[in-house]
Amino acid sequence: MLSPVITLTTDFGLRDPFVGMMKGVILSRCREARIVDITHEVAPQSVLEAAFILGESFAYFPHGTIHVGVVDPGVGSARKPMVMCTENYLFVGPDNGIFTRVEETEPVREVVEIAKQDAMLPKVSATFHGRDVFGPAAAYLALGNKPSALGPTLAEWTRLDYPKPRIGQDSITGQIIWVDRFGNLISNVSRTQIEEWSGSDRFAIQLGSTVLHQVSASYASVPSGQTVAVFGSGGFLELATNRGNAAIALNAGQGDMVFVTRVTRP
Amino acid sequence: MLSPVITLTTDFGLRDPFVGMMKGVILSRCREARIVDITHEVAPQSVLEAAFILGESFAYFPHGTIHVGVVDPGVGSARKPMVMCTENYLFVGPDNGIFTRVEETEPVREVVEIAKQDAMLPKVSATFHGRDVFGPAAAYLALGNKPSALGPTLAEWTRLDYPKPRIGQDSITGQIIWVDRFGNLISNVSRTQIEEWSGSDRFAIQLGSTVLHQVSASYASVPSGQTVAVFGSGGFLELATNRGNAAIALNAGQGDMVFVTRVTRP
Amino acid sequence: MLSPVITLTTDFGLRDPFVGMMKGVILSRCREARIVDITHEVAPQSVLEAAFILGESFAYFPHGTIHVGVVDPGVGSARKPMVMCTENYLFVGPDNGIFTRVEETEPVREVVEIAKQDAMLPKVSATFHGRDVFGPAAAYLALGNKPSALGPTLAEWTRLDYPKPRIGQDSITGQIIWVDRFGNLISNVSRTQIEEWSGSDRFAIQLGSTVLHQVSASYASVPSGQTVAVFGSGGFLELATNRGNAAIALNAGQGDMVFVTRVTRP
Repeated sequence: MLSPVITLTTDFGLRDPFVGMMKGVILSRCREARIVDITHEVAPQSVLEAAFILGESFAYFPHGTIHVGVVDPGVGSARKPMVMCTENYLFVGPDNGIFTRVEETEPVREVVEIAKQDAMLPKVSATFHGRDVFGPAAAYLALGNKPSALGPTLAEWTRLDYPKPRIGQDSITGQIIWVDRFGNLISNVSRTQIEEWSGSDRFAIQLGSTVLHQVSASYASVPSGQTVAVFGSGGFLELATNRGNAAIALNAGQGDMVFVTRVTRP
Repeated sequence: MLSPVITLTTDFGLRDPFVGMMKGVILSRCREARIVDITHEVAPQSVLEAAFILGESFAYFPHGTIHVGVVDPGVGSARKPMVMCTENYLFVGPDNGIFTRVEETEPVREVVEIAKQDAMLPKVSATFHGRDVFGPAAAYLALGNKPSALGPTLAEWTRLDYPKPRIGQDSITGQIIWVDRFGNLISNVSRTQIEEWSGSDRFAIQLGSTVLHQVSASYASVPSGQTVAVFGSGGFLELATNRGNAAIALNAGQGDMVFVTRVTRP
Repeated sequence: MLSPVITLTTDFGLRDPFVGMMKGVILSRCREARIVDITHEVAPQSVLEAAFILGESFAYFPHGTIHVGVVDPGVGSARKPMVMCTENYLFVGPDNGIFTRVEETEPVREVVEIAKQDAMLPKVSATFHGRDVFGPAAAYLALGNKPSALGPTLAEWTRLDYPKPRIGQDSITGQIIWVDRFGNLISNVSRTQIEEWSGSDRFAIQLGSTVLHQVSASYASVPSGQTVAVFGSGGFLELATNRGNAAIALNAGQGDMVFVTRVTRP
């Protein structure tokens, strides 16, 4: 039988022992689980960043993977712990919108509240549900138990107001949603959105005072140090500096506006 | 048979290849070991921080887990490499007090010196015993060998002078022992200590110029941006800022004094 | 059967989901792979740093390990994806010199281009071959497939101009090639080179205005806070500060020159 895969996406960082404790709890209950870190460097308490990361990543894992997301500023309050089930994956975390982007690509089949005491640590703290509730619930599912055994179905769950680009007649207005380690500026405007809107490749891309007139094939399509627009590995319009750092070179960052504008030949 | 679990707690960081090398050595000798990182971001050479981390974490792992701790400023000197055995766990590391806090919760059954050459790399360097001595010893134990096969019993071993709170008639004086990624200020005063001392919940908590009059249930018990005292996930009194960073908000950090004072109604 | 081991060495960092995605892709194709991180903190686009790291690390892993190295500023350009085979290991990455140091210790038996479409993701992006090409190729090899099934043999491949020390009659001139987390200054001058050149231990070591007259056994051979030269765990001459940080104490860093000079008794 294939070992179950559990992924972790949190804002716990790697200096504290939080991630290690979660893994200890999971392995105590399901020794054969293969635990993979997606990231633990989500900005503290940024559910939006975690939603972005999970949306980009989840589908690259084997079907059946249990994705645990814990960015949980409301820990210990009334927000419910939950499991969201799609056709191919299970998602375990707080009901705060952290799995919002999953629904862009996979319809939700069922959401259940994690209520079963036996599937939690005997003593649940008010400050660390990753260890006490979500980790054990993931292990419980990894053992082959059905999500419905964890608690009652939820008819409603929280969705984030995830920023979408505004698509107009003459332009698309998006924003930089993520700056990666290389300083690449990743927007929320997808290749599909641009292609459906454009019908041609005659458009300009503007970020601050930078204007580009084409989307290139790769970073290396322009000389070193020059700015280039590409469709990045997640399918989104991205501004980069070949062998450099666009965030620094263009003095740009998360939240900055990006304009894609139709160009009419005079 | 269950795969053996080995955890690693070091000050090696994640940029250098040190941790990877240790894992390579372990897997070369025990391919089925499941290696879990607790943290590699202990402050360089801070045995005290590693002792804190290990004390918080070790008991969340399956019984039989082999915990390797390597913060080892004395590497290459006379300090001995050792294995400490408790009822449920094995601890592998230098005899410098790194496992001091384990004894708070589990009595030590046996401590042996790692002396057996065959259980080390053929060539032991003077600067990296994590790779050359402790990793291989952990693998040797993971294969099912008895600790006593590694070397002679040690009658004495090093214990750190781990800072304990001073419990007086009218007050408990503790200190901030750890600041986590969220800026939560974790003290060395435990819930149990306060409850046994207090007999009631009529006490004040003071850190610098901040005074709180109760321990709340969770971070979210107070409005965003306000300071709150809770008993954290490790059972210690902790000062936090709801959806903020208490270390920044209160300009406080490791080593700062915390006072818990009896309040008498006038 | 032993689980296959795959290591990852990249400049992806740990905040972005890139590493997690690679692991998801690998586990989707080879569930039993044991994936070990060597480091993901190579300086962005520094093929030289990755070459150093891989050269230090690869031989500590079990024979048969598949080492994936992805520092790939030319991603999407003409540089070829390749597999390099030595007697004991397989290396998967871009043909940009990232595996240069492997050849110092293991002769290369065969290099093949990764050309087989079936061994890549169905849709290969122009910006993330770690996920789309190298990860899947590693999984393909981990399943037991022969490297030659991936594509044609390459007669030529790229080697970096890796900095070597200059060995003269009276002195060896090397440089600091790596500064580790502890601030230890690791040079490119090996113990073997010094011993073959020297014939005695009567030499001086100079870095900036610091002069040392011996190589000590360990960091702890000198009092706390003093500078010491040792042969480090990789066999290279290294300057360290006992229980301190030599990079800070000596204001030195990567690229600084180190001189080993013969001392003649007057």
